[in-house]
Amino acid sequence: MPKGFLFNAVSAGIKAPGRLDLGLIFSERPSVAVGTFTTNLVKAAPVLIGQSRLPSSSVRGILVNSGCANACTGSLGLEDAERLLKEAARLLAVEEKELLPASTGVIGERLPLGKMLSVLPELVSGLSADKVEPLAQAIMTTDTFPKVAERVLPLGSSEVRLLGIAKGAGMIAPHMATMLAFILTDAQIPAPVWQDLLREAVNLSFNRITVDGDMSTNDTVYALANGASGLPLGSQDLAQFSRLLKELCQELAYLIVKDGEGATKTVRIRVCGAEDEEKALTMARTVANSLLVKTAFFGEDPNWGRILAALGRSGVEFDPYQVDLFFDEVCLVKNGLSRGKEAEAKAYEIMKKREFTLTILLKRGNADAEVWTSDLSYEYVKINAEYRT
Amino acid sequence: MPKGFLFNAVSAGIKAPGRLDLGLIFSERPSVAVGTFTTNLVKAAPVLIGQSRLPSSSVRGILVNSGCANACTGSLGLEDAERLLKEAARLLAVEEKELLPASTGVIGERLPLGKMLSVLPELVSGLSADKVEPLAQAIMTTDTFPKVAERVLPLGSSEVRLLGIAKGAGMIAPHMATMLAFILTDAQIPAPVWQDLLREAVNLSFNRITVDGDMSTNDTVYALANGASGLPLGSQDLAQFSRLLKELCQELAYLIVKDGEGATKTVRIRVCGAEDEEKALTMARTVANSLLVKTAFFGEDPNWGRILAALGRSGVEFDPYQVDLFFDEVCLVKNGLSRGKEAEAKAYEIMKKREFTLTILLKRGNADAEVWTSDLSYEYVKINAEYRT
Repeated sequence: MPKGFLFNAVSAGIKAPGRLDLGLIFSERPSVAVGTFTTNLVKAAPVLIGQSRLPSSSVRGILVNSGCANACTGSLGLEDAERLLKEAARLLAVEEKELLPASTGVIGERLPLGKMLSVLPELVSGLSADKVEPLAQAIMTTDTFPKVAERVLPLGSSEVRLLGIAKGAGMIAPHMATMLAFILTDAQIPAPVWQDLLREAVNLSFNRITVDGDMSTNDTVYALANGASGLPLGSQDLAQFSRLLKELCQELAYLIVKDGEGATKTVRIRVCGAEDEEKALTMARTVANSLLVKTAFFGEDPNWGRILAALGRSGVEFDPYQVDLFFDEVCLVKNGLSRGKEAEAKAYEIMKKREFTLTILLKRGNADAEVWTSDLSYEYVKINAEYRT
Repeated sequence: MPKGFLFNAVSAGIKAPGRLDLGLIFSERPSVAVGTFTTNLVKAAPVLIGQSRLPSSSVRGILVNSGCANACTGSLGLEDAERLLKEAARLLAVEEKELLPASTGVIGERLPLGKMLSVLPELVSGLSADKVEPLAQAIMTTDTFPKVAERVLPLGSSEVRLLGIAKGAGMIAPHMATMLAFILTDAQIPAPVWQDLLREAVNLSFNRITVDGDMSTNDTVYALANGASGLPLGSQDLAQFSRLLKELCQELAYLIVKDGEGATKTVRIRVCGAEDEEKALTMARTVANSLLVKTAFFGEDPNWGRILAALGRSGVEFDPYQVDLFFDEVCLVKNGLSRGKEAEAKAYEIMKKREFTLTILLKRGNADAEVWTSDLSYEYVKINAEYRT
């Protein structure tokens, strides 16, 4: 665990009674904090507040709730969030602007302010270093498991630690920050460097996943570095640290797809041999978001025509009769044509697995890109048809 | 019925035994023929052949099959389609290039040529003016009902007739021609005019619907005008004719959405008060394709936050706190904020209907656009997870 961070979570009755829904992350010393946010034009109140406060060198904590997104709530929503932060700051004996807000849940409803204010003293007094798990639970909505990842960078006889906590199962799409994720480290790192490292890591992790192609109003990644390790990072350490940060974000992003609403499969879509990375990414995303491809994954049907049809509407130029398709190591399509019933039977065996990789070989250049997606099941429809009832 | 057109359909055993799957439309005289086609880069063999033959002033017929798309089949697929057209032309005593091909069904499989050739004599000998219904059945795949529409333009003591036949239930998305549709008229009309009228009508009908956001490799609209009415169209008649053509295409397009795979709702998404039509259309399409909006329709949940979230990721600039939302005549959201539980209860009543209109009022300009969509149900997942099994 990174040094100098405390956690707690309580039940404020925003979700069903008894479920953890209000959490606090507290840094014992001022943190260098940066963030990435949803690119949705409709931004929730906590996103607007968080954006206005970052980057900062004096962040002391994050107050987060699930069950209510505090989005589409206008100026009253902003006032609600500020009221909560003010009270939490008073109890923590820090400045209000040193706290960051985050919310996730139903859009268009006000926060139950009274309930939340009444449990703040309990939330603050119970802070401790070992309550990461309850905090990770308190930010869950349709998630089925909490998402936590760690990395350690050894530095001589000591070490720097990285901790990541995320939530997300639906309203997940590329071209945005992500759902909620909090990255904590005891590294000493200046804000501009921290922001660059975060942007790069988010771009290669949370921005490469999709569950349903819908973008949230609340997506936020907060990254706090409190320097408690007391170890400055040399330029070589920084490269190592950056690699670990990327790994950590990718682990959390993969967990989000794995926990995709109703998901029974997690599929890595790799497009290889494209002219440039952007083209590869566009094609991978089009396949990853195709309902027909996603339902074929659910049905364990190696219906490769749907994959080619999706590639064909991606807007990227290619020659269909040069394309090879692989399910893991099984080549199902060679130069745009089926390799026959036997190859299909082998691909079917691969698709029965919980996780596999679809590789699309274009043979046009040297650029690759990868996007992670889930399948589309009855359960996805059930979850989202019944979400508010 | 337009004069001078004959129809027939038989079972060639491409689909399940006994189901009609091979159809023929024959024009007793040469027709002025134009078409619009899928913009998918991956184009089926019949699309490539049809595109190469149009526009034309001497088309005699359309040979169409369901159950196999003849897409992703390479040069062999082109040879298969040409072999069939050649044999049909011989039996009909016309030129091979005077026939147009169309196919719909599974991608990546070859046409069962032997079966199809063996029933061609029966298909040709049984042609008659009253077999529109079997023809419409023969082009169905996951469709649950045949789709036929008619219009009549009275001209003095005589009249010009328009007939449209369409299929489509899945792999339906905007920015393309459509699934299969055949428009037949006995009007006298020059090819360039006919092409312009068709393009405009398709743009306001088939290009404004979505079921799943996936674009087919086989989408084709063929429009045949055989002049059998013997009536030339004056410029005023042409305006009337154009209006009826648009109506006819809209009726067929609406039927496709109504028959959307697994659909229990048909919803008109209207965006009003936009700065220009393209922006209105982009926003309407983003809402119409959102899985979260579509599952909320299925769940009869007036979850307006999802609608605003979809608008917010459309890429079009607007002020969320100026937006009004209506379900039919019920105003659920005023200036971006909920009008409360009573309005929500009324909106819920509207959503229980089989068909309703969602109106999104932006208050930025005078441009409107409308897109028709279906909901996303368990049945959609079932149909597409099990399609080939």
